[in-house]
Amino acid sequence: MRLHDTAFRAFASDNYAGVHPEVLAAIADADGGHQTSYGEDAYTERLNEVVREQFGAQAEAFPVFNGTGANVLSLTAVLPRWGAVVATGTSHIHNDEGGAPERMTGLKLFTVPTPEGKLTPELIATEARGFGDEHRAQPLAVSITQSTEVGTVYSVDEIAAVSEFAHSHGMAVHMDGARIWNAAAALDVPFRDFTTDAGVDILSFGGTKNGLLGAEAVVVLDPAKADGLVYLRKLTMQLGSKMRFMSAQLLALFDDDLGLRSARHANAMAARLRGALEGVDGLRFTQATQANALFAVLPPDATARLHERFRFYDWDAATGEVRWMCSFDTTEQDIDAFAAAITAELAP
Amino acid sequence: MRLHDTAFRAFASDNYAGVHPEVLAAIADADGGHQTSYGEDAYTERLNEVVREQFGAQAEAFPVFNGTGANVLSLTAVLPRWGAVVATGTSHIHNDEGGAPERMTGLKLFTVPTPEGKLTPELIATEARGFGDEHRAQPLAVSITQSTEVGTVYSVDEIAAVSEFAHSHGMAVHMDGARIWNAAAALDVPFRDFTTDAGVDILSFGGTKNGLLGAEAVVVLDPAKADGLVYLRKLTMQLGSKMRFMSAQLLALFDDDLGLRSARHANAMAARLRGALEGVDGLRFTQATQANALFAVLPPDATARLHERFRFYDWDAATGEVRWMCSFDTTEQDIDAFAAAITAELAP
Amino acid sequence: MRLHDTAFRAFASDNYAGVHPEVLAAIADADGGHQTSYGEDAYTERLNEVVREQFGAQAEAFPVFNGTGANVLSLTAVLPRWGAVVATGTSHIHNDEGGAPERMTGLKLFTVPTPEGKLTPELIATEARGFGDEHRAQPLAVSITQSTEVGTVYSVDEIAAVSEFAHSHGMAVHMDGARIWNAAAALDVPFRDFTTDAGVDILSFGGTKNGLLGAEAVVVLDPAKADGLVYLRKLTMQLGSKMRFMSAQLLALFDDDLGLRSARHANAMAARLRGALEGVDGLRFTQATQANALFAVLPPDATARLHERFRFYDWDAATGEVRWMCSFDTTEQDIDAFAAAITAELAP
Amino acid sequence: MRLHDTAFRAFASDNYAGVHPEVLAAIADADGGHQTSYGEDAYTERLNEVVREQFGAQAEAFPVFNGTGANVLSLTAVLPRWGAVVATGTSHIHNDEGGAPERMTGLKLFTVPTPEGKLTPELIATEARGFGDEHRAQPLAVSITQSTEVGTVYSVDEIAAVSEFAHSHGMAVHMDGARIWNAAAALDVPFRDFTTDAGVDILSFGGTKNGLLGAEAVVVLDPAKADGLVYLRKLTMQLGSKMRFMSAQLLALFDDDLGLRSARHANAMAARLRGALEGVDGLRFTQATQANALFAVLPPDATARLHERFRFYDWDAATGEVRWMCSFDTTEQDIDAFAAAITAELAP
Repeated sequence: MRLHDTAFRAFASDNYAGVHPEVLAAIADADGGHQTSYGEDAYTERLNEVVREQFGAQAEAFPVFNGTGANVLSLTAVLPRWGAVVATGTSHIHNDEGGAPERMTGLKLFTVPTPEGKLTPELIATEARGFGDEHRAQPLAVSITQSTEVGTVYSVDEIAAVSEFAHSHGMAVHMDGARIWNAAAALDVPFRDFTTDAGVDILSFGGTKNGLLGAEAVVVLDPAKADGLVYLRKLTMQLGSKMRFMSAQLLALFDDDLGLRSARHANAMAARLRGALEGVDGLRFTQATQANALFAVLPPDATARLHERFRFYDWDAATGEVRWMCSFDTTEQDIDAFAAAITAELAP
Repeated sequence: MRLHDTAFRAFASDNYAGVHPEVLAAIADADGGHQTSYGEDAYTERLNEVVREQFGAQAEAFPVFNGTGANVLSLTAVLPRWGAVVATGTSHIHNDEGGAPERMTGLKLFTVPTPEGKLTPELIATEARGFGDEHRAQPLAVSITQSTEVGTVYSVDEIAAVSEFAHSHGMAVHMDGARIWNAAAALDVPFRDFTTDAGVDILSFGGTKNGLLGAEAVVVLDPAKADGLVYLRKLTMQLGSKMRFMSAQLLALFDDDLGLRSARHANAMAARLRGALEGVDGLRFTQATQANALFAVLPPDATARLHERFRFYDWDAATGEVRWMCSFDTTEQDIDAFAAAITAELAP
Repeated sequence: MRLHDTAFRAFASDNYAGVHPEVLAAIADADGGHQTSYGEDAYTERLNEVVREQFGAQAEAFPVFNGTGANVLSLTAVLPRWGAVVATGTSHIHNDEGGAPERMTGLKLFTVPTPEGKLTPELIATEARGFGDEHRAQPLAVSITQSTEVGTVYSVDEIAAVSEFAHSHGMAVHMDGARIWNAAAALDVPFRDFTTDAGVDILSFGGTKNGLLGAEAVVVLDPAKADGLVYLRKLTMQLGSKMRFMSAQLLALFDDDLGLRSARHANAMAARLRGALEGVDGLRFTQATQANALFAVLPPDATARLHERFRFYDWDAATGEVRWMCSFDTTEQDIDAFAAAITAELAP
Repeated sequence: MRLHDTAFRAFASDNYAGVHPEVLAAIADADGGHQTSYGEDAYTERLNEVVREQFGAQAEAFPVFNGTGANVLSLTAVLPRWGAVVATGTSHIHNDEGGAPERMTGLKLFTVPTPEGKLTPELIATEARGFGDEHRAQPLAVSITQSTEVGTVYSVDEIAAVSEFAHSHGMAVHMDGARIWNAAAALDVPFRDFTTDAGVDILSFGGTKNGLLGAEAVVVLDPAKADGLVYLRKLTMQLGSKMRFMSAQLLALFDDDLGLRSARHANAMAARLRGALEGVDGLRFTQATQANALFAVLPPDATARLHERFRFYDWDAATGEVRWMCSFDTTEQDIDAFAAAITAELAP
């Protein structure tokens, strides 16, 4: 039963897109017969082999339902009950998870304003204090987002610097990798280079925004830093019964480089849009375009007219900043038509 | 990439089964193009139409990821921060959710021993006390499971009696319907008869155990009793981004009676097994077989030998009770072979 | 400004009584000048010396505000986020703390019916199961109450048996000692004998019910079992700023045996009441009277008439069971007058 | 048993001071005989009469143990489970409560940098957004501190402006009044003028920092905004059993203007210190001195030498800012000696 127009595409979010056909095929392959539920299946076993290949021999994957679940589970696993997280003021865990970190497992956030969505040792240091003082929630984790909420990408060195600072202060390093594939495509280095080897301890490994039906995973990179994952996943309500299908989706991303192919395409579409609009009068890009998102300021009336024909997000109502997002199925025609429309609206 | 034997089937749990082919087809139909995420899509809209047809004009569905999520969200929505739930000692929320109700939203449980897995007004009354006393968590909800954790099914009148007692004490009624399709098939009455019209206020509507890939829903039956569902679903980490695929799965169950067909089959397979084994020496059934689960006590050595060839659960190690579960894809041949094996093991 | 009748005394609860004059004097002694807040004061330092003398060289005391705080802090300190507590169905943590254990730190309780308010290895075993199973909250602590909620007292051997079972299953042992002084007086052995040396790991050490204005302490008996107490006390909102006065109160109980003197007196008054009423027709004691509480069943009309003249608790409305409690300031005249009134009401 | 030097006084915190003799006398007056526990006593009844006189006929007081408890209880009472609080980056709830708001009842904080420790409508507006968006924790309360953490005092008009903005956005207004007596003394207007009549909905009413042994109260000013206080106080572990002594302490502050006398004195001592040091070379005050706290920047070596002889707080290690606090028992001689020492250390 098809109820929708399969020709319609938007620039609102990469989760407006559907499931990549190769992922649907992988789900179908995993179907049939009985498999032990809750993770003791052949697909989850294979997923862990792949994860060890990609992230190091000590890595372990715990599939979960969504990004909020992955973030809360990751941070809870590396923090004692008295721990706190230093994160950017633009972070998803602070702005876009309905308070789940605080409400579900009592996580405390210390947020830092960051113009480009990136933490640095200097910025972390402003909140990484009060160690040993019972009155202050203990800042024992740093959370960074790769690619960031504003479409930028940490370099390997930037991540390594964050990790070095964090570890020297007894803090664990969490990466929110909801769009980690776009970062990997942008950096063009193996996952391991900018995660495990750059000092990341635990990772929210994204999949849904890159063409899955719905599957993410917590990947423990340093098992010495995280405890009780199997219990915590269950009690945070992130344990899927028919896990073979979650693992099969995640596996599909590694199959024939599907995940990288999709992310490279999305990034390329963003670059194409940037290229088409760079220098257009009346439009100012507010962030570097390093992954699949663009941020720009437009005149409000132009934005209003564009909203009548295209779906995208108003990012900051106060400044007129908008967000345009590309996904695995954005086409060159989509980009060119959108760029033409924007250019037309901004024409004098 | 297929990694498993599609011919293998077990009697361990209905979630060892995979996805019904008609559900896979429905997922594929929902794919392609862009749809607004987080529930503003055509499939979720249609799901709500169907839910109103099935449960009454005031009903509303909130798709969630799993049964624990559905239960915690349902109970949280009908309880103030000082509320408590009266439930059976065998309930899933007490035994099988890793403490999620207590840990995620601070739910307090008062449990009652129930031989057949069913609450009655008399049993509820043993814990429905202390109203207005600040020292006692306020028992403001009752949770029943349909079909129950021990394979029995509440009659319409039994549910109505629970609801009448609960409502007269200011308590809301929650139904954990992880296997509600099996109950509907067993009772052979519309959903509405044993939910909305029997006084149930909020429902964890199951799908995964009846052939879905992974989708459940909280169905609010009395909106006056539940508040803030949209916020609560998000903060309990149960909001799926590509919700069209969750709704499409749930819709598939109503399409051409797929859900009832599947549940009737599973129930029939359980009845077939019961019929084949009733009266066999050395085996005693401990519960009525009204849905798709059987509970029996066997000699430990027979159980041990059967475990070498078949997958099923030991339910109570102390008594030797085992659980056998049938699913939508259990075949008559499966049943007959299993019954023959059990009979052979018990033969003198 | 005195607003009340200092001659009135009740049998309702030992917390209806006020502050022992020796405790008031101790508070006054601790006053004047400045002392470092939050526990770095001379009185808290001295309290810890006394606690080490009483409970062993490794013991450490953390003063807190009330019994619920002491219990929640104790149990949280010995449990991981996935831990659960096995306790009696009559326990204060289950019935009388408004769900604080569940709501504040997500503790999960598995309760066991216990006729005399006491756990045994056999009773604990009914819930101490499912170790390693992520679906079941992990039962990693046992909580016992000394003296119990029904006025009985565990013997040293009974506690040792509970601890041995618990430790052999990897469970920590918590004692709710809201009335530990009454137990110490009843057993007539040093605290250490029925706590540290009997295997108790962490203790809610009571004071308020035995003549303090308001002070309890968590006493860690096995530091290897508890972690982060200083942080946990703060975040559970149990850290008092002018702690010198909390510690001075607790110290007063050890000064010239005040605590034991008070508890012995309260116990003796309970025994005197029991002695006066034992064998009276129409009255049946339901529990042994080993500390300062009595439990009896009376005809409802007699209870109703007694309520007009005396304050006491209805313990179980269904059975007509009442509770009578003696405190440090209950007098022989109080007892004799109450006994006479009861006897008169029950006279044919 | 006196263990300390009653002649020693510090400038570290007003909670280094002890109990005012008039408060000790009030506690003694409340002693003797039995009073119903948990708040049904004559002193709590009288406290509520006084609170209605001071804050309006609809006001109600709920004594609690400490300031963190008062803040968490207040904010929880005015917020749904999905609510968030807008507060200053310097607020006690964010920096000094060990994460209790987040961990105990899942409160989410949105913090705003505020140079003078004060929120304004403009500052609140930066976080008061996303209403109706399930992804963003709903900012449904504002929390202000009076007097502030940096020793400033909101004017009546400033509070009214905050309340007007908040109420127009559906937000409740909480005041953290840990030092409300110092603010009342500074403003020299009745409590009601800058609380109830200025639009404050719920108040953490302080006492401990102004000469009590240990008692605060949540004062509900607009009962339509707060729900379930009696249950919430219990479950947040803030319900004291012998409440008569908590209420008697709070009452003492209103008796013969003790609270105002004490606060005026503390404020005057702060002003005396400011007067003595204003203009001294090498010292720069960083905040207005409107209550009983002073904030100044000194050369690190001078601070280090002063620390050898006096107790005070380093407020900001990065800038060399220190905090000096006066209390009800600070003497003119204390001030003059401290001022002389500081001046001497800064002399060229």
